[in-house]
Amino acid sequence: MDNRNLTLLTDFYELTMMQGYYKNQTDPVVVFDAFYRTNPSGNGYAITCGLEQVIDYIKNLHFTYDDIAYLRSLKMFDEEFLDYLSGFHFTGDIYAIPEGSVVFPMEPLVKVVAPIMQAQLVETAILNIINHQSLIATKAARVCYAAQGDPVMEFGLRRAQGPDAGTYGARAAVIGGCVGTSNVLAAQMFDVPALGTHAHSWIMSFPDELTAFRTYANMYPENATLLVDTYDTLRSGVPHAIQVFKEMRDAGKMPVKYGIRLDSGDLAYLSKEARKMLDAEGFTDAVIVASSDLDEHLIDSLKTQKAAIGSWGVGTKMITSADCPAFGGVYKLAAIEKDGVFEPKIKLSENTWKVTNPGNKTVFRIYDEQHKIKADLIALADETVDENDKLLLFDPIETWKKTLLQPGEFTVREMMVPVFKGGVCVYQSPTVKEIKAYCQQELNTLWEESRRLVNPHEVHVDLSAKLWDIKTELLDTFHTGM
Amino acid sequence: MDNRNLTLLTDFYELTMMQGYYKNQTDPVVVFDAFYRTNPSGNGYAITCGLEQVIDYIKNLHFTYDDIAYLRSLKMFDEEFLDYLSGFHFTGDIYAIPEGSVVFPMEPLVKVVAPIMQAQLVETAILNIINHQSLIATKAARVCYAAQGDPVMEFGLRRAQGPDAGTYGARAAVIGGCVGTSNVLAAQMFDVPALGTHAHSWIMSFPDELTAFRTYANMYPENATLLVDTYDTLRSGVPHAIQVFKEMRDAGKMPVKYGIRLDSGDLAYLSKEARKMLDAEGFTDAVIVASSDLDEHLIDSLKTQKAAIGSWGVGTKMITSADCPAFGGVYKLAAIEKDGVFEPKIKLSENTWKVTNPGNKTVFRIYDEQHKIKADLIALADETVDENDKLLLFDPIETWKKTLLQPGEFTVREMMVPVFKGGVCVYQSPTVKEIKAYCQQELNTLWEESRRLVNPHEVHVDLSAKLWDIKTELLDTFHTGM
Repeated sequence: MDNRNLTLLTDFYELTMMQGYYKNQTDPVVVFDAFYRTNPSGNGYAITCGLEQVIDYIKNLHFTYDDIAYLRSLKMFDEEFLDYLSGFHFTGDIYAIPEGSVVFPMEPLVKVVAPIMQAQLVETAILNIINHQSLIATKAARVCYAAQGDPVMEFGLRRAQGPDAGTYGARAAVIGGCVGTSNVLAAQMFDVPALGTHAHSWIMSFPDELTAFRTYANMYPENATLLVDTYDTLRSGVPHAIQVFKEMRDAGKMPVKYGIRLDSGDLAYLSKEARKMLDAEGFTDAVIVASSDLDEHLIDSLKTQKAAIGSWGVGTKMITSADCPAFGGVYKLAAIEKDGVFEPKIKLSENTWKVTNPGNKTVFRIYDEQHKIKADLIALADETVDENDKLLLFDPIETWKKTLLQPGEFTVREMMVPVFKGGVCVYQSPTVKEIKAYCQQELNTLWEESRRLVNPHEVHVDLSAKLWDIKTELLDTFHTGM
Repeated sequence: MDNRNLTLLTDFYELTMMQGYYKNQTDPVVVFDAFYRTNPSGNGYAITCGLEQVIDYIKNLHFTYDDIAYLRSLKMFDEEFLDYLSGFHFTGDIYAIPEGSVVFPMEPLVKVVAPIMQAQLVETAILNIINHQSLIATKAARVCYAAQGDPVMEFGLRRAQGPDAGTYGARAAVIGGCVGTSNVLAAQMFDVPALGTHAHSWIMSFPDELTAFRTYANMYPENATLLVDTYDTLRSGVPHAIQVFKEMRDAGKMPVKYGIRLDSGDLAYLSKEARKMLDAEGFTDAVIVASSDLDEHLIDSLKTQKAAIGSWGVGTKMITSADCPAFGGVYKLAAIEKDGVFEPKIKLSENTWKVTNPGNKTVFRIYDEQHKIKADLIALADETVDENDKLLLFDPIETWKKTLLQPGEFTVREMMVPVFKGGVCVYQSPTVKEIKAYCQQELNTLWEESRRLVNPHEVHVDLSAKLWDIKTELLDTFHTGM
């Protein structure tokens, strides 16, 4: 558990609004949804990730003496409110779709049901955590998809946007499919494999490449992967690596795992030539690792070119999700309790798809007979979907597009689970390894057409008839009533 | 000071290499340079940033009992080496260009002179910290340049790549020119202004917009900035804001600072229309704040369109440096001590500009008579540049391009300062406010042509004749000797 106190990791306006509610003695229970609008990197889905850190954050929420003193120094908050803050803790409910799940735009990933002062305070940190980790988990799923089952190692720490981005980014990358990370702190914190061998500087610090290789391979026979591009890959690096492997074989001390790493140059050409050289000497099980500014498109291209690469080290472009470095998750007010009932609230926009979905909601996943995702259904939290009944799905914008499912043709799963109830955590986070395994199962519920890297098939996210009615009614009220 | 122990925030290969050196009983003093090769976002310079956090990291370096137990569990490290690690601390020297300085490609931003085991361990964290903060400081400098002196507020926490990216990113953004941040934790940690007013949810939680505005403005008359785009900017938001300002004026309680915030729609059109409406009622000093997926190019375009915006809230695209989310800094071995002398080392590449600069180096800045940067000169650490002598500058690749400076035509400043000596910190980090002010001075030493957003004039980074000779000699040795 991360014990850092991130209570002040919030936007200043959350605090000014909180004091506003406090002074006006209005603190109704509300529903806020954290959701996103567009899949990153043109993907066909996203992987939701970061819930364990959201839980840690909520559990640790409290204003220290120093925090209160700091807020007092700003001369914006009065003593009564500061006194309230000094006793603050979270008393609300939180629901979420479990980490590692495949998710789609507009679905609540996290739902906060709490007095508005509390629900407002936690907005920024929840978005920060979920936005970051979901972004990287989704990117990693793309990269691993391109690698077609080859191991992908997360190597991005030095280019990540700060220590947390390197560490929680590594966590998310492993959940999205990577076999491990070079980041020792992440490996320790999340009990995932720490990976890597040596750098160019290792080679340069020896009088010659051969001695550097020989020293390294004899010291780490469990994993003798030699970096061959310090001077000249095919004329120096690969021949020297082969010489060392021969020496070890001759001495009856063949490494358990061994191979070479290419970190520059034309990876397609170099890998094929190196493969021939290794095979010619009988080292057919030597693994060729590649690492050099890789992303899913480059890996896909190398696969098409039949590059002889069996393992991938991916850094900068995965740990920053370079082509799309923000997930874009938002946190919107959906309902306000009044006399014990949730009144749905809507945020308008000129763009149809930017209009929020009102009310206290949940998400049902509809699977077809092959247990692939047929569609998702956003419904009100008190609705149920009966597998023994017919189910009519319709597009929430082009409503004439309809599908009628017969009993037996579909199964249903409610995606959101309770995480906090009355301020008490009621959810036990799985380990990262368990989340990773679950994520793999989740990816298997997607049709192949929704997984491809470019122009994936879009999975339908529909609204229940009841929710659609409420939304339409609210829109009509606005357009006629204001 | 950040007291987190980030000792394991390192790539696994640093540890396997360290054990390699340990077992081979070779731990020579070496020189490593952290530098970058290309300015981010097509900029003409970068702002180096993050040194204070590097200092904190080095000061806190130690392996805890748990760290050692974790490393032992990996079954890669022997007890003797683990014992060495348990007593590890940094004993070397570090030199750096102060934070907030304008810097250019290939210049060492941080130089580590230490036994190779130590110098290797600290590689990853130094790169992580400097890469992240330099990236965001540089981006912020671009955004503030586009805003032409208008205040720019950092609003990106919810979209940052994790808590650190939001917090240290805010630090870097303020150093690069922002007036403050919405991130309360960053504002507290770095003593910079915490900024922001209210969200759409504030408006939606009231029965109507007018009541929401009235309540807010009366509570915060020091800064009554009202968000006007929840329902309809020009037909509802702006008229309601004006009504509230009128009420306050009539009551003799005019807010100290007041205005409106536009967060969606056509900012050029809406700001101009809103300006007219405000001015018509005498609210000529009301500030119009804009925030809506802004970056330097959008701000530049709005300036060209004469948008009536006086203050800018910039989020996602600045806090992630969205068009270029990694700085690309590297850490390369430059020299190894042998018999008390530093032997220069070089890393080859097929690309001329990717070949490293060998030797123990420093950076001199050459200013012209207007105290603008004429060129930078990378030289050996024991070289000096005499202002009373002639100075010949030449391009390190196209060496026929030469400039001869006469005494009186230039002044010189050595950019690198000692930060650690023999493991002891000898540098006192300025406050963030001081670094911000220094950065502003630094930006003023650039010619306007090097500051523009697109196709800036490239500042020359030359090598001293002595360094150029050593580099050429090493290249020749490689090409004839291997």
